[in-house]
Amino acid sequence: MGSEESLERQIRFVLEADRLKTVARQSRIADGSRHENSAEHSWHLAVMALALAGHAPPGTDLARVVAMLVVHDMVEIDAGDLFVYADSAALARQAEAERTAADRIFAILPDPQAAAVRALWDEFETRRTREARFARALDRLQPMLLNMQTGGGTWVAHGVTAEQVLAKVALIEDGSVSLGRYARTMIATAVAQGFLRPAAPPERGTAVAGPPAG
Amino acid sequence: MGSEESLERQIRFVLEADRLKTVARQSRIADGSRHENSAEHSWHLAVMALALAGHAPPGTDLARVVAMLVVHDMVEIDAGDLFVYADSAALARQAEAERTAADRIFAILPDPQAAAVRALWDEFETRRTREARFARALDRLQPMLLNMQTGGGTWVAHGVTAEQVLAKVALIEDGSVSLGRYARTMIATAVAQGFLRPAAPPERGTAVAGPPAG
Repeated sequence: MGSEESLERQIRFVLEADRLKTVARQSRIADGSRHENSAEHSWHLAVMALALAGHAPPGTDLARVVAMLVVHDMVEIDAGDLFVYADSAALARQAEAERTAADRIFAILPDPQAAAVRALWDEFETRRTREARFARALDRLQPMLLNMQTGGGTWVAHGVTAEQVLAKVALIEDGSVSLGRYARTMIATAVAQGFLRPAAPPERGTAVAGPPAG
Repeated sequence: MGSEESLERQIRFVLEADRLKTVARQSRIADGSRHENSAEHSWHLAVMALALAGHAPPGTDLARVVAMLVVHDMVEIDAGDLFVYADSAALARQAEAERTAADRIFAILPDPQAAAVRALWDEFETRRTREARFARALDRLQPMLLNMQTGGGTWVAHGVTAEQVLAKVALIEDGSVSLGRYARTMIATAVAQGFLRPAAPPERGTAVAGPPAG
């Protein structure tokens, strides 16, 4: 990988990566001043991996977690970011667009690096390993932390219910028992503060909680 | 580090980190649309560490390089970003402000994590190890790449000379021979394209190059 042509491709990949700084997410940064972009979001997840390393299952390879988090959103350069509570048809279209993006973007790197980075991305997507499950847990937890800092953030903006969020918490528990527990407590606080609706509207017949908390 | 109080401090650190998204750097992102912030810059360096890993000296611990790059700019939450070509008095004041910031910010984490992250930051600053020297090389190279993409960027904005940039290239060569060579070629191209002034003004008596290139 030390050849001049390889370096040229590696630099092209680095420049391509820069475009992730222009992909806006639904979440706002903690001071509420603007939407977060996917590049700084990826960095924030890497910070979380370091800070919360003690909450990963024993034997987790933290370096692979961080590498996965650094590259996991690069497909959004082509596919854009989709809100986690989008409907299932939109989520399926997004998954397809992201695979196509992965085919293009990671192949900018010379082989065997391209294959290695693509494998990292596939690992994150398919949640095959404890590293991927921990990384995914952080990716779910981070927007919840931002919502708590911004008066409910995307939860309030989209009228999200506690039960919708609890359905996603399974993914956090799957990656880290203690962070899953932390997320459940946070959701209870969010309901109490009025950041999350306690249940789905009655007409959907899926109410799981009592009357709206103060 | 699994206790409730530890987790509470780790989350506080993660939320504190969010503020780095609001620290503006001199460089513009590659499409020229706005200034880069220090959080997305840190992510971009982590991408570079992965993409350019083959240019690190043999035996380099890449995981430590990435961890160092993820935390290296967090001190700017308090100290702000300073242009690399600021005068030496400003650079000394900045170094002091960054140490004070490191004392405060990394201590948000519980021990022994706080000490470990602080040690990573000190390692980056003092360039004691090959990991730190490689990380610093990437930190120097990245704004040069952005300047090349933005019509000269901060070089043109501040009338920087090739010789000033070449003085900083020593730091790149010190971390990676091949990236140092790449940087020198890039500087020659920048002079040829008029992005860098070929030499200091005559009154400073430090001219090193011929007439301005086309």
